[in-house]
Amino acid sequence: MPQDKQTNRRILLASRPHGAPTENNFRLEAQHVPAPKTGQVLLRTVWLSLDPYMRGRMSDAPSYAPPVGLGEVMCGGTVSVVEQSEHADYAVGDWVVSNSGWQDFSLSDGRDLFKLSGPVLKHPSHALGILGMPGFTAYMGLLDIGNPQPGETVVVAAATGAVGSLVGQIAKLKGCHVVGIAGGAEKCRYAEQVLGFDRCLDHRDDNLAQQLSRHCAEGIDVYFESVGGKVFNAVLPLMNTKGRIPVCGLIADYNSTNLPAGPDRLPLLQSAILRKRLRVQGFIINQDYGHRFDEFFRQMSQWVAEDRLVFREDVVDGLDNAPETLIGLLEGKNFGKVVVRVAGDTPA
Amino acid sequence: MPQDKQTNRRILLASRPHGAPTENNFRLEAQHVPAPKTGQVLLRTVWLSLDPYMRGRMSDAPSYAPPVGLGEVMCGGTVSVVEQSEHADYAVGDWVVSNSGWQDFSLSDGRDLFKLSGPVLKHPSHALGILGMPGFTAYMGLLDIGNPQPGETVVVAAATGAVGSLVGQIAKLKGCHVVGIAGGAEKCRYAEQVLGFDRCLDHRDDNLAQQLSRHCAEGIDVYFESVGGKVFNAVLPLMNTKGRIPVCGLIADYNSTNLPAGPDRLPLLQSAILRKRLRVQGFIINQDYGHRFDEFFRQMSQWVAEDRLVFREDVVDGLDNAPETLIGLLEGKNFGKVVVRVAGDTPA
Repeated sequence: MPQDKQTNRRILLASRPHGAPTENNFRLEAQHVPAPKTGQVLLRTVWLSLDPYMRGRMSDAPSYAPPVGLGEVMCGGTVSVVEQSEHADYAVGDWVVSNSGWQDFSLSDGRDLFKLSGPVLKHPSHALGILGMPGFTAYMGLLDIGNPQPGETVVVAAATGAVGSLVGQIAKLKGCHVVGIAGGAEKCRYAEQVLGFDRCLDHRDDNLAQQLSRHCAEGIDVYFESVGGKVFNAVLPLMNTKGRIPVCGLIADYNSTNLPAGPDRLPLLQSAILRKRLRVQGFIINQDYGHRFDEFFRQMSQWVAEDRLVFREDVVDGLDNAPETLIGLLEGKNFGKVVVRVAGDTPA
Repeated sequence: MPQDKQTNRRILLASRPHGAPTENNFRLEAQHVPAPKTGQVLLRTVWLSLDPYMRGRMSDAPSYAPPVGLGEVMCGGTVSVVEQSEHADYAVGDWVVSNSGWQDFSLSDGRDLFKLSGPVLKHPSHALGILGMPGFTAYMGLLDIGNPQPGETVVVAAATGAVGSLVGQIAKLKGCHVVGIAGGAEKCRYAEQVLGFDRCLDHRDDNLAQQLSRHCAEGIDVYFESVGGKVFNAVLPLMNTKGRIPVCGLIADYNSTNLPAGPDRLPLLQSAILRKRLRVQGFIINQDYGHRFDEFFRQMSQWVAEDRLVFREDVVDGLDNAPETLIGLLEGKNFGKVVVRVAGDTPA
């Protein structure tokens, strides 16, 4: 079902998932397209970003952001185009990054918009990826918390994902030995041959810990954490003294409903932090680093212009496919940054 | 058995403890006093510091420092006096901080010595406490990693111990709301009435978590960790977003031989670090901050001179009592900084 100019298709949160989300947790409904009041713009969604954090917003467990309410539109970053404007700063045809969520049309008073201009307009969906939230997460988490030094070993989980692929490449630009961890031989080959990682290991291999130990012969100085679970278990014993662990996600745990069986390894982690003098630090990119967005955008745009970074998108066509695609993303079925093409990429 | 000038009593590590150490893990032996060669000094121990980290050195589990070997003298910081000198920089009668360990006499080439002068000589054992390693640990861990801001809530475990008592008092100097946790009503009263903490809670109370929640009404911004175990469990749910947890010790776990029964709460800690964007950082004072000792010593000496800090010592007489005292220290039986008076306090 393609986008049309009379109907606003919206995908709502119908119920909260217990464990992995299913399509039944979502509901599609259609409304009339709303009209902007004075000071507002009407936005039409062209690209919708799907990201692991969305699983957290579907739950009402306490977290850093309020949950999506039942019956509300699923949240999400979009690249949108201004269709009508009653706002002095925006003209029809302007391209913006917005938080419009999973719908065709939305209203905004402009306060949460970021106007796109210059080279990014050649590839607007990049504003949701390499030049957007995932790129910003990779850049700040690695450089500010991870603080990698030339010759150090950096390990990155979800190595071909939106964030991980950039973490590894930036670490290579900084002169590090980079070992990725990904799911499956194809992704691992891609990380080594296309992204230029020194090595990429398959987390489905039974001997991940052994492999990791072999390819991190001098230990691990920075582990960029986005998955948790068994990858973390393999990494922890190899962390070097004074190692840094920026934590931007724990996708392996998002769908779990209970803590794993014992023994209780919490004291083990505490003890590793003490004995190895580790710095383990969680961060949420916009809250913690919003004030440094310009610095990121300038540097990353330059690297993109110089062709020093590869960024792979996993493009899915059609808003209707968003639920299934998010479910797959949480299982690692995507290959690269997931973006949903809600409408044609050409300006209206 | 008092110190005499002919005999070097040495307390050796006789065997490695399994769980809590016992007196059988130690052995007292007597030797002749050694003679210094060219470039050496002969030191006579006056004060010996006993500290929780010593439990770690009794084990051969991998740690940040090599273990004490079986049959070797137990390690420990001392305040010592130069008895004979074949070293140009030291004269007989000089007072130094040394790592002489649990013995009456030792030789040094001077490289690990810190000469005492000025006001600290009025109270030489302070060089093992408020102006030594524990003070340095409190100062740097709190100020550099904890970074407490006026009006924030700081919680400190082992609140009347060498480190904790200073952490809380420095946090008060910085304008924080300070809640201590200690073992027993007497220590709690002392923390409130003498140290000036806003509140001190008894970790033996069944309702510690409730009490802590009540007295940290605005959550916890900095938790200075030195104990782990159930205190940490009570603290974690109360940590505020962007909270900081400097970790200098985990005394509650030092004697444990197995991980606790499940469930495995390691993912719970990871998830708290992510959701609350916590910074959890281990540190070992000399390795991490050795280059900033002068800054600490200057500021702390000034606070001492201005009478702005209280520092309580738990003085034990006689080297022979060191084993029993360390065993008690690991059980929280001490009240204040434990120092062993190996010999009279007056310069020889």
